[in-house]
Amino acid sequence: MGSDSDFPVMAESIGILKKFDIPFEVFVASAHRSPAKTTGIAAGAREKGIHVLIAGAGHAAHLAGVMAAHTCLPVIGVPIDSSSLNGFDALLSTVQMPPGVPVATMAVGKSGARNAGILAVQILALANSELEAKLQAFKNEMALDVDRKDKKLREHQ
Amino acid sequence: MGSDSDFPVMAESIGILKKFDIPFEVFVASAHRSPAKTTGIAAGAREKGIHVLIAGAGHAAHLAGVMAAHTCLPVIGVPIDSSSLNGFDALLSTVQMPPGVPVATMAVGKSGARNAGILAVQILALANSELEAKLQAFKNEMALDVDRKDKKLREHQ
Amino acid sequence: MGSDSDFPVMAESIGILKKFDIPFEVFVASAHRSPAKTTGIAAGAREKGIHVLIAGAGHAAHLAGVMAAHTCLPVIGVPIDSSSLNGFDALLSTVQMPPGVPVATMAVGKSGARNAGILAVQILALANSELEAKLQAFKNEMALDVDRKDKKLREHQ
Amino acid sequence: MGSDSDFPVMAESIGILKKFDIPFEVFVASAHRSPAKTTGIAAGAREKGIHVLIAGAGHAAHLAGVMAAHTCLPVIGVPIDSSSLNGFDALLSTVQMPPGVPVATMAVGKSGARNAGILAVQILALANSELEAKLQAFKNEMALDVDRKDKKLREHQ
Amino acid sequence: MGSDSDFPVMAESIGILKKFDIPFEVFVASAHRSPAKTTGIAAGAREKGIHVLIAGAGHAAHLAGVMAAHTCLPVIGVPIDSSSLNGFDALLSTVQMPPGVPVATMAVGKSGARNAGILAVQILALANSELEAKLQAFKNEMALDVDRKDKKLREHQ
Amino acid sequence: MGSDSDFPVMAESIGILKKFDIPFEVFVASAHRSPAKTTGIAAGAREKGIHVLIAGAGHAAHLAGVMAAHTCLPVIGVPIDSSSLNGFDALLSTVQMPPGVPVATMAVGKSGARNAGILAVQILALANSELEAKLQAFKNEMALDVDRKDKKLREHQ
Amino acid sequence: MGSDSDFPVMAESIGILKKFDIPFEVFVASAHRSPAKTTGIAAGAREKGIHVLIAGAGHAAHLAGVMAAHTCLPVIGVPIDSSSLNGFDALLSTVQMPPGVPVATMAVGKSGARNAGILAVQILALANSELEAKLQAFKNEMALDVDRKDKKLREHQ
Amino acid sequence: MGSDSDFPVMAESIGILKKFDIPFEVFVASAHRSPAKTTGIAAGAREKGIHVLIAGAGHAAHLAGVMAAHTCLPVIGVPIDSSSLNGFDALLSTVQMPPGVPVATMAVGKSGARNAGILAVQILALANSELEAKLQAFKNEMALDVDRKDKKLREHQ
Repeated sequence: MGSDSDFPVMAESIGILKKFDIPFEVFVASAHRSPAKTTGIAAGAREKGIHVLIAGAGHAAHLAGVMAAHTCLPVIGVPIDSSSLNGFDALLSTVQMPPGVPVATMAVGKSGARNAGILAVQILALANSELEAKLQAFKNEMALDVDRKDKKLREHQ
Repeated sequence: MGSDSDFPVMAESIGILKKFDIPFEVFVASAHRSPAKTTGIAAGAREKGIHVLIAGAGHAAHLAGVMAAHTCLPVIGVPIDSSSLNGFDALLSTVQMPPGVPVATMAVGKSGARNAGILAVQILALANSELEAKLQAFKNEMALDVDRKDKKLREHQ
Repeated sequence: MGSDSDFPVMAESIGILKKFDIPFEVFVASAHRSPAKTTGIAAGAREKGIHVLIAGAGHAAHLAGVMAAHTCLPVIGVPIDSSSLNGFDALLSTVQMPPGVPVATMAVGKSGARNAGILAVQILALANSELEAKLQAFKNEMALDVDRKDKKLREHQ
Repeated sequence: MGSDSDFPVMAESIGILKKFDIPFEVFVASAHRSPAKTTGIAAGAREKGIHVLIAGAGHAAHLAGVMAAHTCLPVIGVPIDSSSLNGFDALLSTVQMPPGVPVATMAVGKSGARNAGILAVQILALANSELEAKLQAFKNEMALDVDRKDKKLREHQ
Repeated sequence: MGSDSDFPVMAESIGILKKFDIPFEVFVASAHRSPAKTTGIAAGAREKGIHVLIAGAGHAAHLAGVMAAHTCLPVIGVPIDSSSLNGFDALLSTVQMPPGVPVATMAVGKSGARNAGILAVQILALANSELEAKLQAFKNEMALDVDRKDKKLREHQ
Repeated sequence: MGSDSDFPVMAESIGILKKFDIPFEVFVASAHRSPAKTTGIAAGAREKGIHVLIAGAGHAAHLAGVMAAHTCLPVIGVPIDSSSLNGFDALLSTVQMPPGVPVATMAVGKSGARNAGILAVQILALANSELEAKLQAFKNEMALDVDRKDKKLREHQ
Repeated sequence: MGSDSDFPVMAESIGILKKFDIPFEVFVASAHRSPAKTTGIAAGAREKGIHVLIAGAGHAAHLAGVMAAHTCLPVIGVPIDSSSLNGFDALLSTVQMPPGVPVATMAVGKSGARNAGILAVQILALANSELEAKLQAFKNEMALDVDRKDKKLREHQ
Repeated sequence: MGSDSDFPVMAESIGILKKFDIPFEVFVASAHRSPAKTTGIAAGAREKGIHVLIAGAGHAAHLAGVMAAHTCLPVIGVPIDSSSLNGFDALLSTVQMPPGVPVATMAVGKSGARNAGILAVQILALANSELEAKLQAFKNEMALDVDRKDKKLREHQ
């Protein structure tokens, strides 16, 4: 994440990774204020055995793009709403990558951070059938959860 | 893709997949006009041995989201600029997925379609070291290509 | 509605339906988290004797469009402001339907939910002269209510 | 429609109505330049046996809203992209109706005009089982058309 | 104004009119909920000796445009931020009038309402030299007020 | 106007003024490139017998605001679409004036320029009953013109 | 700054200038309410020995542009979010300057104000090697600060 | 510039630098496709005797921000309209820099590129009185040019 103030948002990604028992590492590294650290993390990730990078940042959010420039690993970007422009700046800065260097962009904010974790798990599950089964169970559980809320709402009406 | 009129855009994805010798299948399937076909493709993809889905659509682009709802495989979304709103509608309809069902969203249009292909290769390369080497070569080639253009521009100035 | 958190908004639709003594059923069903349930409701609505569907959802709001894909009944969409983007995402995701599958889109939020109820009544009133008379009375009452507020404001100035 | 220059867009609605053998009447009537005519059409529609109104207009598109203010019939609004703002002005002016007076808003431009026709048919089909059967056939035909395009595209690849 | 809830904004216009001793009348009249009243006020304004109309409304703000359609008097529009879209809807609905029927549009909200009052005074001052002198004094006073704030800020720094 | 390239747009204002036999003067004066000239025109307008100022400009359109800062006469602003941003920049730069200094803002482009001329006539007509009669005739003619177009369209259908 | 209410934002610029021991002067001067003062400050700045101007304003923020029109010194613009439009109006009014008169535009709000101070220091440092060293130290300190936050976050996880 | 396709836009900057006899160097260097080259140029600029950097890029334009992260020199950013989003993406990606790392952002496209050149000259002129005199002459010439266009337009009317 680009700043420690982004933690409450990115905690959503962490929650998912913990839920699926995926080992992970968390960094605060700014594309602009600590560029050497940022590119170092991206460039060294493959060798450290990292498979997927998740980058959350606000404003003119370059973090995901800068990381993607320094690695061939999949990079997931989470735009964070931390300026007055409601996250439109972070969204466009993350998603509108020029041809050649993709960033898998999620929704702005907590929904996006949560989905970043899930997408990472989906990618890892391609080579891990146990994880795949957990994902399927997670998907089923979501549908059941909607059912429970449906039932509860209809009972109380 | 949601319509055959999206082909000129989605051909960018196909070009990348061919370049990396990735076997792929192309469908025209609309989330709204042929929903059964669409959900069938998504739900059956895993069993057919498909690893990654790429969905390109315009307007209120639901294609990627609907596919993601029916599979645990990674789904990559390409918003296509096919209404008067310059692709803002397709972008927001693709990227702003609610928590639980991620779509890896790319830039609007051809850049995004090209990057969708590259992201798919990045994901597949996690379990394929030959592909990984090709990706690294592709990345190096991009840098050299910028160098060539740089040199050419400076010579002609 | 796509989530039980949308209830405070969609309660506006319910209020109108109750006021006009229209029998109705409420569901929580997500286009993404419980797609089978959602398409089942839409596909089975005609046979259950339902005449109009109202779908309220936020983010990349696909609920109304997905329902419209599975029924020939009129579908009314209510975009809900539940992300940082002020409802622009839900509005464009609901209204910009591709040709062939309409969604009758209302304003973002409570105004839209209230109007969804009224539009449903207008549609039902086409075949029900008693309902038509009630609608006309409702319209007259709105004008009188503006008059009352006008009078009150002018007295207190 | 608000201007005869809107005809190429609104012809899409007309095409659908003709296809389904729905009798219809076409007017050019501006909410701003010929307000008396406009409100007259709306106010008198019920008595003339009209069941649904479709209003297409550009700029600050008030046509649908003004008609809706003068009738209890369902009013469908088609925003038209006729200013430099790509139809954002017409869309917001049509869809963001205040509580009490709904306009069933369609997508900007030709897609929306076509869907306006279909929504009108869906509303009329509630009391006309023949029309309902035609609609279902139309929906099936759309899915088959996607299939044909799918097949054709895949053959030529 | 279109609703009594717009009063806190429109009070800014009233404050200016009082400050310049301009006689005025206040109405609550909705373009959509009480259209007859609204067009009646506009159509009868000239005969009542009214010179300028100020219309403040939110959402798809048609009030100013509808009044302008029924009078040759200058109509000033104040877009009010009363939906989730931050006033973009009211602004575009008020300002993007089609050719033939102008609305003199002000900024969204209180700034705009205040300026609506000032513009009305500017128009009336064209035929009233006393008012013109007051306006000039008001303009000078604004500059002095900035000076005072400047001085105060610099002293306290 | 801020640039001679704005002439094709501002010619719409001129056309209206000529039609109503209003004497007028045209200037090219930039708020940024020739500020002294611009403020000179605004500050001296009253003494020259000018009653209304119309300012058309593109990009960050400051022309109308700068003129309004230097005069108590009514200033009408016409945003012109001359950048890649479709006139959103010129519109917001013209309409969002801070409290104290109004600009009567019109729609972006030719519609707005035409309406600027009409608003100027409306203002002048307050003290000129002959002009008032002409305006009423113009309004009636617009309604008739819509009728003619309506008739023609319906005949040819 | 255009208003004393902008002080909490512009204090960020002041903080930076103080930190780097840059002498500075603060003015409240409105492009619209006190135009003579504003242009006087800009026109006289060079002679007073001022090297860089920073202008912060909201709404249709003309302050920076108007100053730039009256000086050849670099002008830095800070858009301030003081209307309902989240600063989009101030941003576009500041950045979209027509060719010939640049404004060095910063992000909306406090981030932008802080960066305006830093850019001013960067410009001054071109002719001041002591300042240049301080800037480099500041840059290094930012990277260390990110490191400290990184370490702290990782310890507490 | 980020791509050789940006040359027609950035040629505007070059034209200004040539006009003022400022020595300059042109690079094609992408923040994403050739990041090492890009950061190398930025990091080495100071030592090469470069005083100001101008970076033009489209899409999620990170070029200016990445360069600013690697140097204490002033960096001027030119957003380029090269996606379907009309340059909104490049503008927000360039201007919304987080606190600590400013980018002096210009208007989208050719106007901005031209102004980038002028701003660079303004910065250099602070330590070069000959350049300062040339700038003043350039400013005077712009005003005269407006005068000439004004005269010409008025003669031909």
